[in-house]
Amino acid sequence: MNTKRNGRRKFLKGSVALAGLAAVRPLSGQTQAGGETEPLSAGLVRAVGERSRFETKRRTWTGSGRVTSSLTPLQDLKGIITPSSLHFERHHANVPDIDPRQHRLLIHGFVDRPLIFTVEDLERLPSVSRIHFVECSGNSANARRGSGTAQGTHGMTSCSEWTGVPLALLLREAGVQPQGKWLVAEGAEAVKMTRSIPIEKAMDDIIVAYGQNGEALRPEQGYPLRLVNPGWEGNTNIKWLRQIKVVDQPYMTRDETSKYSDLMPDGKARQFTFAMDPKSVITSPSGGQQLRGAGFHEITGIAWSGRGAVRRVEVSTDGGATWKDAELQTPVLRMAHTRFRMPWTWDGRETVLQSRCTDEQGGYQPTLAEMLRVRGNAYNYHASFIQAWKINPDGSVLNALV
Amino acid sequence: MNTKRNGRRKFLKGSVALAGLAAVRPLSGQTQAGGETEPLSAGLVRAVGERSRFETKRRTWTGSGRVTSSLTPLQDLKGIITPSSLHFERHHANVPDIDPRQHRLLIHGFVDRPLIFTVEDLERLPSVSRIHFVECSGNSANARRGSGTAQGTHGMTSCSEWTGVPLALLLREAGVQPQGKWLVAEGAEAVKMTRSIPIEKAMDDIIVAYGQNGEALRPEQGYPLRLVNPGWEGNTNIKWLRQIKVVDQPYMTRDETSKYSDLMPDGKARQFTFAMDPKSVITSPSGGQQLRGAGFHEITGIAWSGRGAVRRVEVSTDGGATWKDAELQTPVLRMAHTRFRMPWTWDGRETVLQSRCTDEQGGYQPTLAEMLRVRGNAYNYHASFIQAWKINPDGSVLNALV
Repeated sequence: MNTKRNGRRKFLKGSVALAGLAAVRPLSGQTQAGGETEPLSAGLVRAVGERSRFETKRRTWTGSGRVTSSLTPLQDLKGIITPSSLHFERHHANVPDIDPRQHRLLIHGFVDRPLIFTVEDLERLPSVSRIHFVECSGNSANARRGSGTAQGTHGMTSCSEWTGVPLALLLREAGVQPQGKWLVAEGAEAVKMTRSIPIEKAMDDIIVAYGQNGEALRPEQGYPLRLVNPGWEGNTNIKWLRQIKVVDQPYMTRDETSKYSDLMPDGKARQFTFAMDPKSVITSPSGGQQLRGAGFHEITGIAWSGRGAVRRVEVSTDGGATWKDAELQTPVLRMAHTRFRMPWTWDGRETVLQSRCTDEQGGYQPTLAEMLRVRGNAYNYHASFIQAWKINPDGSVLNALV
Repeated sequence: MNTKRNGRRKFLKGSVALAGLAAVRPLSGQTQAGGETEPLSAGLVRAVGERSRFETKRRTWTGSGRVTSSLTPLQDLKGIITPSSLHFERHHANVPDIDPRQHRLLIHGFVDRPLIFTVEDLERLPSVSRIHFVECSGNSANARRGSGTAQGTHGMTSCSEWTGVPLALLLREAGVQPQGKWLVAEGAEAVKMTRSIPIEKAMDDIIVAYGQNGEALRPEQGYPLRLVNPGWEGNTNIKWLRQIKVVDQPYMTRDETSKYSDLMPDGKARQFTFAMDPKSVITSPSGGQQLRGAGFHEITGIAWSGRGAVRRVEVSTDGGATWKDAELQTPVLRMAHTRFRMPWTWDGRETVLQSRCTDEQGGYQPTLAEMLRVRGNAYNYHASFIQAWKINPDGSVLNALV
C-alpha cells in the first residue's frame, strides 16, 4: 500500500506535480474556503433517501414502447457497484408490475417432486450473496457503428451484489431424474422470455435471486425473482422468473433461435454462445468527455470476463504502440466488474487510449480486426473487441472506432 | 463449494427436509404455476429507476427537526451492501443542500502549501474504492433500553462501496510540516461538525470520498464530499467536508467533549475512543419478526470490527450454553460488514439466539455483564455487548435484553 502511494506521489511530483493539476489552486487571499458552500436550504429526514437534486446521471435508451434497452452511464460511475437505479435493462415486453405475494416459482419436468415456491418460501431457505456483472450479449456490438460515449458503446453491463438461493439446492429438493440434462427457464412478462440452460451450470453457480444491492430486486431487474447466471449472456438470467422445467434437451425457444444466436461468415449460426468474453472499456477519459488540459489524468475503467476473474488489464496511451499494466482494484472477484486505474500525463497532443483485458483462463480481448477475421461483419452479439478513444488536442474525446 | 452445498443438503434432508419447510408445497392439480403472477399493469422505461411499489422497507428515526438519527432496516437487508436510500444518517443541524459546483475543500494549517480543491479537482486525482461500514458510536447503546427490532437496536451502522481520493495524497501535496500531528476536520452544515484526528490515521487509510455505491454521495451521507475514516466512530467521518486544518494537538472541539466521549464508572471520561469494537447482530430471526413454525430456518446477520477483518462469528441457539461457528460470506473485507449464516432447525420451544464476533486482532464481543463490569451503567457510546433475541413458542421474536 505504501509502495503504491509512494509510486503515485513520485508520479505526481516527478512529472506533473501541481503544475499538471491545472485546477488545484493554492489558497489566495481573496478566496474564502467554504465561503460558497453554505447550505442552500434545509433538508428533511426521509424514510427512503434520494440523490441530490444536483445529480443528473441517467440511463439512456434505444427502442421505445414494449421492447427497449436502457444503458448504464458507465462514464459517470465509481468503483464496481452499479447503483440499482442506473442498472441497465433489456426487456422484450415492458416491465411487469408484480405483487410478490401473488408470485410463484414452479419447478417441474424430469423431477421426483414438482415444487411451487412463494417468494417468502425462498427467502427462508439457505441464501448466498455474490457480486456479479450481468451483461447483455448485444453489448458493445454497436461500438463501431456510431455510439459516442462509454454509455452508448458498453452501457449494457452492470454489476450488483445479488442475494438468493442456490438453484442447485432447489433442484436437489425437487430431485432431478437421470433424463434431466437441461432446464428451460421462463419469465412472467407478456412474451415469457424463455431460455435453455445446461443442468451442469445450474448445479454449479446459478442463483435464484430476490435481492440486489441489499434490497429487493428492482422491477427492471426482475422483481421479485430472477436467475443470476454468473458470466453467461444477460438473456439467460431470466427475469420475473416463474417456471423452471427440467428437460432432456435444449428446447430451441424463440428467444434462442430468432435472436441471441451468432451468425458466422459461412451463413451458419452458432447454436449457443453462453459465456461472455473477456472485455474492458476505459470509462474516463471516454467519448463525450472533455479534458481540461494537458497534465495529470487518471485513466480508469472496468474489465470483466464471463469465464472467471480478470487477471490483467493493459492500457495503451499511444494508439497501441506500447502497453502498460493498470492497477486492479481489490478484491478482484470472479464474474464481476473489476475497476482498473492508471496514472497518465497527457502531453496535449492527439493520441488514442485503449484497454485490453486478460482473464484467469488466459482468454484476452481481441482487436477489432482479429474479431472480424473470425466472426465476419454480420455479428450482433458477443462483440468484445478493444475499444479506442481518440483524444484531440483541444481535450475533446471521441470514439476512435467510428 | 460442493462440500458446503452437500452440507446444506444433508442438513435439509437429515433433519427437516421438506417437512420443515412448511410453506414449500408440492405441486397439486388445482394450482397453476404463475397463474397469479400476471403483470398487473405495464411499466415504463425510466431514466432513473425506483423500487417496486410493493416494497415498504424504510428508515425509522429518533429525534425530530434539526437533530436526528435515522436507522437502517437491518432485518430487511440482504448481503453486505446497504442500499444508499436506506443508509443510516445522523446529523446535528439538518441535511444541507449543497451545489457541488460551489463547494470547496480547504487544506491549511501546518502545511507548506495551503490548497483549495473543487469537487471536480478531486474527481480528477488518483482514486480508490473500498467497501467499508460507517457506524455511529451511539449504535446499540439502547439495545437493552427498549428497542425491539434489529433496526432499533443496531440500525446506526451501514456499509457502502466508497470512492474518493486518499487523504494521504492530498496531505502530501500540501506538505505537512513537522509540527503537524493532528487534523481538525470540519463539515459545512450549520453547526460545523468538527473532530480532531491523529495524522497517522489520515496517512494510513482515510478517504476524501465523493462516491457511494457507484454514484455520488447521497445528501444525508455528506454530498458532495465526506471523510471515510475506516473503522472509526461515525462522527469522525466528517460529512459535507469543507475544511481540514493540520494542527499540533487535538482541539477538544464541542463535538468531542460535550458528546462522543465515554463516561466511566469513576466519573471521568475517556478522552477519545476512536475505533469501533467487534460487534455482530442476528438480523433474521430478530425482534418483531414472526417465525412461521418449527423446522428449518436460516439464521443470518452481520458482523464487523473497526480494527480489521472479522475472523469468526459464533452463534448460540440455546441461550448461550453452546456455540457454533457460522459461515462467513466471502470476500471478508477489513472494516466492512460481514454477512454470516447458519442453518437452524427450530424445535418449536422457547429459546434465545445470540451471536458473538471475534476480529483478526483477537478482540471479541463481550456479554452485557462483562461490558457493565468495566464501563458501568452510564455509557452512551461504544456499547458492543452481545445481542439476544428470544424466540417464543408462538414464533414471535422479542429483544431478550429488555
